[in-house]
Amino acid sequence: MNRVERLRKILVELGVDALLIVHPENRRYLSGFRGSAGWLLISPKSALLAVDFRYVEQARMEAPGFEIVHIKGEPAAWLPGLATDFGVSNIGFESDHLPFATYQKLHTALKKHGIKLTPTENVVESLRAIKDREEIENIVTAAALADAAFQYARSIIRPGITEKHVAWEVEKFLRSQGSETIPFDIIIASGPNSALPHARASQRCIQENEPIVIDLGARINGYCSDLTRTIILGNGDGTFSRIYDIVLGAQLTALATITSGMTAGDADNLARTVIEKAGYGEKFGHGLGHGVGLNPHELPRLSPGSSDMLQENMVFTIEPGIYMPDWGGVRIEDIVIIQKGKVRPLSRSDKIANTASGGLLIR
Amino acid sequence: MNRVERLRKILVELGVDALLIVHPENRRYLSGFRGSAGWLLISPKSALLAVDFRYVEQARMEAPGFEIVHIKGEPAAWLPGLATDFGVSNIGFESDHLPFATYQKLHTALKKHGIKLTPTENVVESLRAIKDREEIENIVTAAALADAAFQYARSIIRPGITEKHVAWEVEKFLRSQGSETIPFDIIIASGPNSALPHARASQRCIQENEPIVIDLGARINGYCSDLTRTIILGNGDGTFSRIYDIVLGAQLTALATITSGMTAGDADNLARTVIEKAGYGEKFGHGLGHGVGLNPHELPRLSPGSSDMLQENMVFTIEPGIYMPDWGGVRIEDIVIIQKGKVRPLSRSDKIANTASGGLLIR
Repeated sequence: MNRVERLRKILVELGVDALLIVHPENRRYLSGFRGSAGWLLISPKSALLAVDFRYVEQARMEAPGFEIVHIKGEPAAWLPGLATDFGVSNIGFESDHLPFATYQKLHTALKKHGIKLTPTENVVESLRAIKDREEIENIVTAAALADAAFQYARSIIRPGITEKHVAWEVEKFLRSQGSETIPFDIIIASGPNSALPHARASQRCIQENEPIVIDLGARINGYCSDLTRTIILGNGDGTFSRIYDIVLGAQLTALATITSGMTAGDADNLARTVIEKAGYGEKFGHGLGHGVGLNPHELPRLSPGSSDMLQENMVFTIEPGIYMPDWGGVRIEDIVIIQKGKVRPLSRSDKIANTASGGLLIR
Repeated sequence: MNRVERLRKILVELGVDALLIVHPENRRYLSGFRGSAGWLLISPKSALLAVDFRYVEQARMEAPGFEIVHIKGEPAAWLPGLATDFGVSNIGFESDHLPFATYQKLHTALKKHGIKLTPTENVVESLRAIKDREEIENIVTAAALADAAFQYARSIIRPGITEKHVAWEVEKFLRSQGSETIPFDIIIASGPNSALPHARASQRCIQENEPIVIDLGARINGYCSDLTRTIILGNGDGTFSRIYDIVLGAQLTALATITSGMTAGDADNLARTVIEKAGYGEKFGHGLGHGVGLNPHELPRLSPGSSDMLQENMVFTIEPGIYMPDWGGVRIEDIVIIQKGKVRPLSRSDKIANTASGGLLIR
């Protein structure tokens, strides 16, 4: 059953007779259209893609299954007419994406035509959370490219090189090896910078005996990957070794014990418990992971209390971390898929914190 | 007067006693904070930056003028308490950015505390439309880098090379010369692809005697530039020459006649009239231009009917184009600033459509 048909089944459950879609990746997922602006209106019988002048040609090429409507101005100007033509009287909209002001104008314009707007949340995102074969192939390719890029990063990092220089060299590597625009800025965070979970690569010179967090991803046919490793140049110290082992223990625990049918909150807890028992619970301030697909962050959401249900063919990250201001941090992240009820890692990079020389060590 | 003080003056006019800001560039403009998530709450007396665990350290470093609040969860969970602490009872919000669902949850949570939410639009964006000295310096640097990148693109384009290859080489040039992540995907659109105003660089091989649209920008300290030129390899044909002259005539007319005190709609019309009189009005389907700053597209909006008032130190593009499906298109774009009431171009690239050999030229 194709994507639009799957969505149509849900429309019935939602009690709306059409869904209005504006979120870029939801739009692309359903229609194939990759432009930066446009609206889908999907009812049981019709599937429209409304775009302005800039995108009419592109929409025709990329979304052959959709009727292309050439629009001018805001949706309040053209949606009432379109909805009336198609006999639609109750339109669901993406309440977590549509700005309040657009909602208000649409509400006013549609009311005059007796058409109702009904808020919905995560309808297309929930479909997207479960990947089909083609999506999985793209993610597997993107994950392999991220592994290669980590290998490359490890080969060029040496004392005295700046974080920024490494990040740019790695980005060039990714792009030249087939990645589209990378899904997020590469993090190369050394020493105290590694205590920032979302650090930016800086002009800081990398030194020996300090943690270096490397977080990167590739993008293939729109699909992202996401990989983090923490390495050290030299022998490190007892702190690094201790923290590293705790994070790795938590990560391996999650890989071994997360199953389908479990809530994403329970999955988070499997790793979190390991870190809490080691006494670092407060230093692990973010969720265990997140879905990955057309967006680098999407459903499911692996964090405390999340009720998202883990299911077959969901793809997500498992990335516990410990962050200690001033000292630094350690994060280890794989991208994984649930298959046959269990977690199968798509990331293949070593998890042993290595020296620049390629020799082993630490832990 | 600093940015927060300018905003506070407007709060009084709006009749609200605080403004809640979530739009990333508005947040950065006011606070300096460059993280991807966070909320500002600005009242006459206080200026708060609320961030989650990931950004506490970074917020402290980047936003020294703000009190940093460490938050957990959605704004409905923490804003009521914060607002009550600060004696705020009527909070303005960015209705063109806040999703409907977030608004609803906030509205419900705040109502219990007797706190009102008032929609606002384009408050910070209007401040941002008028650039200060530091912003202008960054844009001038970014514009010069775009010029250099165009020169570089022209030097490498030859028959048989793919659009994608050129785009990637130009991106590497921009980044290696100091651009941060580029503000938008570089457009290299040849032949029929150039008829798509927002074409993506493809695997198509560039050929002689067809229009090639080159649209690129740099980013310096967050500030963008935007430049388009259309070139041709070989001698072209009569069509190219005729279309090129019309677009160039419209562009030069706009540069010479746009002044401060004029609406952006009237400015658009100055160029549009030239194209309409030449009989190609319907082939110029987008606006004449847009403001440029921390966002590649921001206020003012130069398009038919726009009431945005052009003012001293506004920075925007002037980019008329003619697009003919199957044949191709021509667009010529400068980034400009209004100073002493008149348009001063910041782009310096030649507007003569050149051959690859650097010799002449078409028109």
